[in-house]
Amino acid sequence: MKTSKYFMPTLREVSSDAETISHQLMLRAGLIRKQAAGIYTYLPLGFKVLKKIENIVREEMERSGAIEILASALQNAELWQESHRWYEYGAEMFRLQDRHGRDFCLGPTHEEIFTDLVRNNISSYRQLPLNLFQIQTKYRDEKRPRFGVIRSREFIMKDAYSFDIDEEGLNKSYEEMYKAYRRIFDRCNLKYQVVEADTGNIGGSSSHEFMVISEVGEDSLIFCDNCGYSANVEKAQAVDRQFVAESIKKKEKVYTPNIKTIDKLAEFLSIESSKILKAVLYTDEKARTFMCLLPGDREVNEIKLKKLLGIKELNLASEEEIYKVTKCKPGFSGPVGINKEVFIVADNEVKTMTNFVVGANEEDYHIINVNLNEFNVNIYGDIKNAEEGDNCIKCGNKLSSSKGIEVGHIFKLGTKYSKLLKATYLDKNGKEQPMVMGCYGIGITRTLAAIIEQNNDEDGICWPKHLAPFEVAVIPVNIKDEEQANLAEKIYEQLKNHNIDVLLDDRDERVGVKFKDIDLIGIPLKIVIGKKISEGQVELKFRSGKETKLVNIGDIIEEVKNFYSLT
Amino acid sequence: MKTSKYFMPTLREVSSDAETISHQLMLRAGLIRKQAAGIYTYLPLGFKVLKKIENIVREEMERSGAIEILASALQNAELWQESHRWYEYGAEMFRLQDRHGRDFCLGPTHEEIFTDLVRNNISSYRQLPLNLFQIQTKYRDEKRPRFGVIRSREFIMKDAYSFDIDEEGLNKSYEEMYKAYRRIFDRCNLKYQVVEADTGNIGGSSSHEFMVISEVGEDSLIFCDNCGYSANVEKAQAVDRQFVAESIKKKEKVYTPNIKTIDKLAEFLSIESSKILKAVLYTDEKARTFMCLLPGDREVNEIKLKKLLGIKELNLASEEEIYKVTKCKPGFSGPVGINKEVFIVADNEVKTMTNFVVGANEEDYHIINVNLNEFNVNIYGDIKNAEEGDNCIKCGNKLSSSKGIEVGHIFKLGTKYSKLLKATYLDKNGKEQPMVMGCYGIGITRTLAAIIEQNNDEDGICWPKHLAPFEVAVIPVNIKDEEQANLAEKIYEQLKNHNIDVLLDDRDERVGVKFKDIDLIGIPLKIVIGKKISEGQVELKFRSGKETKLVNIGDIIEEVKNFYSLT
Repeated sequence: MKTSKYFMPTLREVSSDAETISHQLMLRAGLIRKQAAGIYTYLPLGFKVLKKIENIVREEMERSGAIEILASALQNAELWQESHRWYEYGAEMFRLQDRHGRDFCLGPTHEEIFTDLVRNNISSYRQLPLNLFQIQTKYRDEKRPRFGVIRSREFIMKDAYSFDIDEEGLNKSYEEMYKAYRRIFDRCNLKYQVVEADTGNIGGSSSHEFMVISEVGEDSLIFCDNCGYSANVEKAQAVDRQFVAESIKKKEKVYTPNIKTIDKLAEFLSIESSKILKAVLYTDEKARTFMCLLPGDREVNEIKLKKLLGIKELNLASEEEIYKVTKCKPGFSGPVGINKEVFIVADNEVKTMTNFVVGANEEDYHIINVNLNEFNVNIYGDIKNAEEGDNCIKCGNKLSSSKGIEVGHIFKLGTKYSKLLKATYLDKNGKEQPMVMGCYGIGITRTLAAIIEQNNDEDGICWPKHLAPFEVAVIPVNIKDEEQANLAEKIYEQLKNHNIDVLLDDRDERVGVKFKDIDLIGIPLKIVIGKKISEGQVELKFRSGKETKLVNIGDIIEEVKNFYSLT
Repeated sequence: MKTSKYFMPTLREVSSDAETISHQLMLRAGLIRKQAAGIYTYLPLGFKVLKKIENIVREEMERSGAIEILASALQNAELWQESHRWYEYGAEMFRLQDRHGRDFCLGPTHEEIFTDLVRNNISSYRQLPLNLFQIQTKYRDEKRPRFGVIRSREFIMKDAYSFDIDEEGLNKSYEEMYKAYRRIFDRCNLKYQVVEADTGNIGGSSSHEFMVISEVGEDSLIFCDNCGYSANVEKAQAVDRQFVAESIKKKEKVYTPNIKTIDKLAEFLSIESSKILKAVLYTDEKARTFMCLLPGDREVNEIKLKKLLGIKELNLASEEEIYKVTKCKPGFSGPVGINKEVFIVADNEVKTMTNFVVGANEEDYHIINVNLNEFNVNIYGDIKNAEEGDNCIKCGNKLSSSKGIEVGHIFKLGTKYSKLLKATYLDKNGKEQPMVMGCYGIGITRTLAAIIEQNNDEDGICWPKHLAPFEVAVIPVNIKDEEQANLAEKIYEQLKNHNIDVLLDDRDERVGVKFKDIDLIGIPLKIVIGKKISEGQVELKFRSGKETKLVNIGDIIEEVKNFYSLT
């Protein structure tokens, strides 16, 4: 390809809403352009890399025995009503009607479609196991699309669905996918962590996320360097702290003027924040407001909380709702003296707290030296986030934490969907049994962004060699110099003949401009044709490391081949 | 691949709504399954062939210099409002709103998106010409989806958009696409005709359709075997007939009881239907009812009619609307004595009619021996369909006709979209000019169906060799015979090692059942492993022609390679 005939509009500047490096570089290097919030067009360079990632995914899925199909994005509402998710999915699902007024959605995921397909076409245990996948466009109307294609509303996903006769079969299919995913992300040169994760609105019994380690990741990971335990913070557990019991002191109301935060209160009272009992008020889907208690240095884990209480929606209570319960404005809430009808849930760590501080439910007042006999707790459980420095639930060692971008997620669905949609098979004894399912997703477009997030420098993208949009750029220093132009053309043709994907930068631009663009785009190897022609030489410039090397013109092909096969 | 681990659910029977052979075979051979009306899932076999077609399209598009990108299916309304098509597209466009109430559509086509992309990223004549394409999913809410993936609501299309500095450039880009399309459909082994076509709601100055000749085609083609002229009936022209002038006879009202059709009237009066002046009443978008006149043996061409009158909508007038104009019920309408305010349009052929028959605007009466001086015609033009047997407009020879499936359509758009969307470039003199555009579409999924429509027999699909989902099927006659099973496995592995795409039918089924499935699916070559093993031989069975051939086991690879390279 020649730049003069190509479409690679690079930019010097990008708009300020591009917050992450990958978003900025994808715009600047001309990989994507925004069509609407969270909706992008993939330009030639972006498209080429996307296809390379797709091919890796396809090869590894096929290696694992999965079979590719292609379902529609438009899905009729009936199947989603059968699984009840039509009513549960909420605003994230794009819904529409056809000309006859029939309800459809744009598939945010395809459990229903694949389960329906398999229930209609598979009837015997002899036809199982089966693992079907697709690389297809998904739609999620994100509340806050951001970070370019990391959190977008139309995106490409590889999703797979396995169907087995029993749990043992599912475990095997799941293990195969786990291994395939490792191969895929290894081949994408990603630094990632596999973590236990919550199953969310997909459901099922267990799941793992594949998290690309990155500061811009929207997920927090907790992991143990000692035993390898790792989990999404949504799911991560740690050993509960046991506080040293103190002899009971006398409780006392203290004036804490305008002191509403844990930190200020701890400072004001000169105590550790873990001596404060934090009270957070929530309202559930039935508009019931309840109180949630935990040590002051802990954060509520809303997913754990929802699970513990078996509720579907959780919203922080409004000022009005707080007032109804505490008769006080926010900042001074506590469990002492509260109406007995208010439900109270407390974290397990609260069990060993003594002589702690609570809000007095009175403006500008807290109570110190409170103990558990002063109020009633309806239920105890693990409702806090595990944190760096906590002790590992598996081996007791100190836990670490980092941020991650979720690029893959695998789920053991069990019989959730097969029971709802009646996807059954006849077993060896002719008895009808529900299929046992798993589902497995990879965000293809997000993986592209994650690769860039981990592979860049101040000049632009530094592609892993096999993912670069072009393998080699041929750059004549001065395209108007006939000798240079001719040699560039000749080398370009030679490389093409050796099946090397080469870009000839034949623009009439200063060589500095060309270098800048080619480095921004991230082509791993530049062949620079300049004054050294007179000595029968050209210069090889490597994107990584910035080394250069003079080589004889006759050796170029061999040099390029070495570069691409040696690593 | 082994059938035991594959997903190819074949069917003996299909539902009666599968009217065409391709639709029936795609269901029976397990290529597709219906998800909703006009919405399909591509199963593994269908998906494989789809990819082969896509690759042909991609290769030829790239050969022509076009560059691949990928735009979104979700398109914000604003661009469509800019081009006015938001208001013009009608019910065929799927529309929806996001969670913030913003309007979107599911792209039925991408002129706006590509024009927007190019206007934002190209500014100079030096960056043109440019031809961008994508292979992407389109959405059209067809009034009557049918024939499986031939007329579906979610389908895969290759669409390309060219941007040139002037008409001459456009002509060149258009010619390149014309040639690429010929190469594509030639490589798909299709029998097709390229015809002049109407530009419809895409717009532009001229266009060609690529029509696969087929009885189930929804389009009618007119073509001249002599000079090669060919056009969609929507667009086709023929030489107007000149009727022999008769001496004027006296007009006379005749009683024609309950005779409402042209055929019955001609029979009743013992005349040629061309002696009857057919009057058809239409209502336009402004609810104006007008009369359209043509010889009784001719059909109105509504597209020509709309163009001639410059109107946007055309509906046959209702009984009520007809009564308003003629004061009579339908079946007896005519131009004589009608209110002068009623607009009358007549076909050019009417000009030479004499002593003809018209409706009397009175129930059960017609008038005979009417001549043109009896009424006023507001405008004459070509408003009829050309028909088989007419004389070619180019060479005068007799025209032929056939039915066709439109698989490709190319348009010269000119500056329609670039002017509406202000897609301009700076020319050599620094002057702003609108880009000159073309657009080019291929229905990928429809092409798949068209190939099957032209390549099948009573046993199933007969794929062109290079498009078959598998190149070879290895079939042990009795999988329980250990010797057969082992040899089958060995041959299967050998073929795989030679990069031959092979299906091993290892099901425990009668060999007849296997043959039926493999023939239905259309694999071009079967290797049957049976009793001849004892003589060191297997049988090759060819899908086309039904020949068989005994070959030595050691010669199999060579035989297969010969079969695939000789044609």
